[in-house]
Amino acid sequence: MSASPLVGVVMGSSSDWETLKAAADILTEFGVPFEAQVVSAHRMPDDMFRYAEGAVGRGLRAIIAGAGGAAHLPGMLAAKTPVPVLGVPVASRHLQGVDSLHSIVQMPKGIPVATFAIGSAGAANAALFAVAMLAGENPALLEKLQAYRVRQTEVARAMTQDLK
Amino acid sequence: MSASPLVGVVMGSSSDWETLKAAADILTEFGVPFEAQVVSAHRMPDDMFRYAEGAVGRGLRAIIAGAGGAAHLPGMLAAKTPVPVLGVPVASRHLQGVDSLHSIVQMPKGIPVATFAIGSAGAANAALFAVAMLAGENPALLEKLQAYRVRQTEVARAMTQDLK
Amino acid sequence: MSASPLVGVVMGSSSDWETLKAAADILTEFGVPFEAQVVSAHRMPDDMFRYAEGAVGRGLRAIIAGAGGAAHLPGMLAAKTPVPVLGVPVASRHLQGVDSLHSIVQMPKGIPVATFAIGSAGAANAALFAVAMLAGENPALLEKLQAYRVRQTEVARAMTQDLK
Amino acid sequence: MSASPLVGVVMGSSSDWETLKAAADILTEFGVPFEAQVVSAHRMPDDMFRYAEGAVGRGLRAIIAGAGGAAHLPGMLAAKTPVPVLGVPVASRHLQGVDSLHSIVQMPKGIPVATFAIGSAGAANAALFAVAMLAGENPALLEKLQAYRVRQTEVARAMTQDLK
Amino acid sequence: MSASPLVGVVMGSSSDWETLKAAADILTEFGVPFEAQVVSAHRMPDDMFRYAEGAVGRGLRAIIAGAGGAAHLPGMLAAKTPVPVLGVPVASRHLQGVDSLHSIVQMPKGIPVATFAIGSAGAANAALFAVAMLAGENPALLEKLQAYRVRQTEVARAMTQDLK
Amino acid sequence: MSASPLVGVVMGSSSDWETLKAAADILTEFGVPFEAQVVSAHRMPDDMFRYAEGAVGRGLRAIIAGAGGAAHLPGMLAAKTPVPVLGVPVASRHLQGVDSLHSIVQMPKGIPVATFAIGSAGAANAALFAVAMLAGENPALLEKLQAYRVRQTEVARAMTQDLK
Amino acid sequence: MSASPLVGVVMGSSSDWETLKAAADILTEFGVPFEAQVVSAHRMPDDMFRYAEGAVGRGLRAIIAGAGGAAHLPGMLAAKTPVPVLGVPVASRHLQGVDSLHSIVQMPKGIPVATFAIGSAGAANAALFAVAMLAGENPALLEKLQAYRVRQTEVARAMTQDLK
Amino acid sequence: MSASPLVGVVMGSSSDWETLKAAADILTEFGVPFEAQVVSAHRMPDDMFRYAEGAVGRGLRAIIAGAGGAAHLPGMLAAKTPVPVLGVPVASRHLQGVDSLHSIVQMPKGIPVATFAIGSAGAANAALFAVAMLAGENPALLEKLQAYRVRQTEVARAMTQDLK
Repeated sequence: MSASPLVGVVMGSSSDWETLKAAADILTEFGVPFEAQVVSAHRMPDDMFRYAEGAVGRGLRAIIAGAGGAAHLPGMLAAKTPVPVLGVPVASRHLQGVDSLHSIVQMPKGIPVATFAIGSAGAANAALFAVAMLAGENPALLEKLQAYRVRQTEVARAMTQDLK
Repeated sequence: MSASPLVGVVMGSSSDWETLKAAADILTEFGVPFEAQVVSAHRMPDDMFRYAEGAVGRGLRAIIAGAGGAAHLPGMLAAKTPVPVLGVPVASRHLQGVDSLHSIVQMPKGIPVATFAIGSAGAANAALFAVAMLAGENPALLEKLQAYRVRQTEVARAMTQDLK
Repeated sequence: MSASPLVGVVMGSSSDWETLKAAADILTEFGVPFEAQVVSAHRMPDDMFRYAEGAVGRGLRAIIAGAGGAAHLPGMLAAKTPVPVLGVPVASRHLQGVDSLHSIVQMPKGIPVATFAIGSAGAANAALFAVAMLAGENPALLEKLQAYRVRQTEVARAMTQDLK
Repeated sequence: MSASPLVGVVMGSSSDWETLKAAADILTEFGVPFEAQVVSAHRMPDDMFRYAEGAVGRGLRAIIAGAGGAAHLPGMLAAKTPVPVLGVPVASRHLQGVDSLHSIVQMPKGIPVATFAIGSAGAANAALFAVAMLAGENPALLEKLQAYRVRQTEVARAMTQDLK
Repeated sequence: MSASPLVGVVMGSSSDWETLKAAADILTEFGVPFEAQVVSAHRMPDDMFRYAEGAVGRGLRAIIAGAGGAAHLPGMLAAKTPVPVLGVPVASRHLQGVDSLHSIVQMPKGIPVATFAIGSAGAANAALFAVAMLAGENPALLEKLQAYRVRQTEVARAMTQDLK
Repeated sequence: MSASPLVGVVMGSSSDWETLKAAADILTEFGVPFEAQVVSAHRMPDDMFRYAEGAVGRGLRAIIAGAGGAAHLPGMLAAKTPVPVLGVPVASRHLQGVDSLHSIVQMPKGIPVATFAIGSAGAANAALFAVAMLAGENPALLEKLQAYRVRQTEVARAMTQDLK
Repeated sequence: MSASPLVGVVMGSSSDWETLKAAADILTEFGVPFEAQVVSAHRMPDDMFRYAEGAVGRGLRAIIAGAGGAAHLPGMLAAKTPVPVLGVPVASRHLQGVDSLHSIVQMPKGIPVATFAIGSAGAANAALFAVAMLAGENPALLEKLQAYRVRQTEVARAMTQDLK
Repeated sequence: MSASPLVGVVMGSSSDWETLKAAADILTEFGVPFEAQVVSAHRMPDDMFRYAEGAVGRGLRAIIAGAGGAAHLPGMLAAKTPVPVLGVPVASRHLQGVDSLHSIVQMPKGIPVATFAIGSAGAANAALFAVAMLAGENPALLEKLQAYRVRQTEVARAMTQDLK
């Protein structure tokens, strides 16, 4: 989706794209180059390891990884790269993402995964978090983020007129 | 622990041995050769993959894998080998193993992990299940298993005398 | 459904077939002979015991048992036969299968039930697990299973092109 | 424990006696003849069926059955006898009896199990419920039950003086 | 609905009738006279107490009480009458009946409520349980109950033909 | 919505109005002047603080605050004003409001939030509670509240005729 | 404990005093007259109704009610009096107060119970909330409450020095 | 604790230090300057806002915020600063941190909080994540992090010898 991406957006299946697209939309809005691909921990374990192994060299500054159920993708990527991994629990069919959340957030000491809310709100927030990380060393991006928040505040303020 | 093992007993940390020992005890009781070792999915990802890759060639017929919290070990081993993986959720400190159970049992279609109860009862049962698998083609072992069950029934029957 | 079945696929009610059919489809795909029938633990307890008692003699190498709610079928079959029982929690109407999962996986020490994910993913995986068990002594089946996984990997890899 | 019992108190293991003893104490207090024994659904399945099959003939008017984890005992007894079964979820080690509760209360349409609270409060209440059932046709027992409640009210009323 | 009822079927709101109707249907099928009415613990507390106070005198042998959410009706009726109370957790809108189940089953020592499954399966089972209670002293009803179960077994057996 | 309001009805987003409208309807029915507006804790934190800081001075006697997910609005308002805050957990998409409930009710010692049921029943009850608070010093309002309850009882009593 | 109480502190058993004492301590600290007594919904139902019926006449402005398990006391008091009821879920033995919380907070539309956190933090907060309610018409009490908060802030600020 | 800190470690109470100390230990080990202080969202709301408002100016690159129960600290800090906030759910007394986790991770779209595991494992991982963030632009720190992981792998590998 972009040359020389700073953020990788990966997911266990194309059906997770419905959720992860919210991350891609935010990155696009902020002009942060990213790539999006399916990397299944369980069905493509070797590709997953190669993906993680190449992350530093390819200049990725964050990996947003979404998965559902026994969601091992974020944690296994994190085990294989020092690049920060942002995990997004995708809502599962029967347990509504409680299983996904547990599988992503409850990592043992030593290998962190930054976890966000279940579903597309979490995906969008993972991307906003990646933007905030990059903004730490990029004043223009920080300004953009602050402008985004100002607009967000204005939108929220205007909502009162929608209450009948 | 044994030459030419048929069953691998692996766990994410030596602290899981308290739970997994129950599996080793059953295998010892039935005379099934096994090996026990720490293979951490998160701290030893490459060793874990090598372990799984060698499982068929080394003649393993089952792998009993225990882990707690975001327990990725059983599922990732299963992703890398066709040898049946039996997962044991180790009780976690704060969520009592509910997180471990979700992370092990809720595997997506395509890569199965046979899951057992949380804690040492599950570890013992994983081993009994491995025995039952092997007994399918080993009449002597089947006989042993049936004798084990007969004794188990007798022990249960005798329990009534313990009610004051 | 098949002469001289190696796997029994049983369920508590015909309404569970919607879930268990995924197991039958896998077994058919792998050419593993199986039988499918309704065996209700609560409404047909004697039939259930007879089914379990005949399992070894009839040559069954695994029983895939699905049930929902207070799902006693897998555990009671396991109590009556040394043939490995693979339990599939069927999603229940009000508790989404959490009750089914608890009733199947939390077996006491001594009588194991290998448990899989809630719903049809779990049913498919139980069948894949049965195939893997049989593949341990059947090189042709092992080859088939490995080819299945290779195709599965290819399908997953191709999914990236579905991300718009 | 008693000749010609009206109530059977059964449990899956002698370790459940700590919980079920509260039922025996109530029955003793009310002078209701009962028997207490270990009948494990999983380790003594045939004994369990025989127990249920003999219940009507032996004059049992209720069976109080306690079990923990994947607690199949109450439901399987109920499947085999029309005698009312009162289920007591025994607290399990890791899930505190939530699994036991689900396994007992979530019975499918057709085979009821009357379920009480987790632990010894539930065991005592199952016994009080059995007393109430018998009191429906036994005015003397009804009177005893009402006197028991009057005393209970008095004890509760007197508790205010314990607040410092 | 019937003169001289033996069973009271009560519920907190007419919207619970969708669930409790399953109890009424069973009682009708077995020819057990019953009455059905709305008795809200929270909106009709005095009526509720009067209902409970009159239960023994009016010859009720069981009260089936269904309620959802903070479901106090079964427990409060039980506090006011020695007539056995059978509680049915009605599925709640947001918590699917987990709240109803907790509010009904977790009664403190001293005042039992026999609890059944969430929803209409539980309602039907409460009625079958009431039938079984009455059958203890009514051989004709016991015979009916056993015939009901035989038919139920036959229906379950015939289900295998529905598996395609 | 009203001059010189006694109650503030605030929410994190206009999408919460579907739930909070039930509070506004009750306040309107009782003639209690109120105001309704969107005050997002996360998107309008400074507005939120100003809202709370002005609450005493503007004569608010209660603030009804609804929010979903990580629902911080009620607790943060309570941290900033001594005016009683009534929290309404709005049902969240994936966790049905369990997360909202936890985020609102589990306040630490020192800063109370009075919490009501998940969803619109809770919103209506928060408003009825506000009415009851005000009725403590307003006999006319108390009379209205008691009349409301009498009508409510009559409506519940009449429901029996809806049972077919 | 006090003449002419403004707040009633009631609980289902003297064992709940360990939790509810935190409410009494706050009320004492603020000089709000209160009474404390055991009023069990299940063991003293008539006393409970009389307590609620007398609440308005005796001048109570709030009732703090604590109970555990199937905690019916707060909701039933609320059903019988327009005086605001503040419910405190007491931690239960097996379910840690989740059952108590559900039984108290999930009240149906029409009868509100203001619910606070599980355990003694919730009890203290219920009392602080009662103080805040009374402070709405009592400037001296409002001042006291604001001073309490100022001290609380100072205590929190000073805590940093405790970090080693 | 350090001049010119890059990371702020804040918590709602000094009692959370037992958990958050694990974060401080990691930061110390990696030589990342940090500050640690108590900033209570509920008891020090204005200090909290000032803390967040000054974060960018003071050069903080990440804020690690731990809190328990209705844990609003991480989310409210995130609402007030674009500096990345890493939330650590502190285990709560009654709900073991499930409430803390929900209050931290389930943030609405727009304001992200990166969430880690419940308890001290999560605190340590938040710090390791902060290190990884900083390592993205600091090759020396990246090297340190990779060396840390190598040692971690070696420690895990050596654990096998602890299995008796």
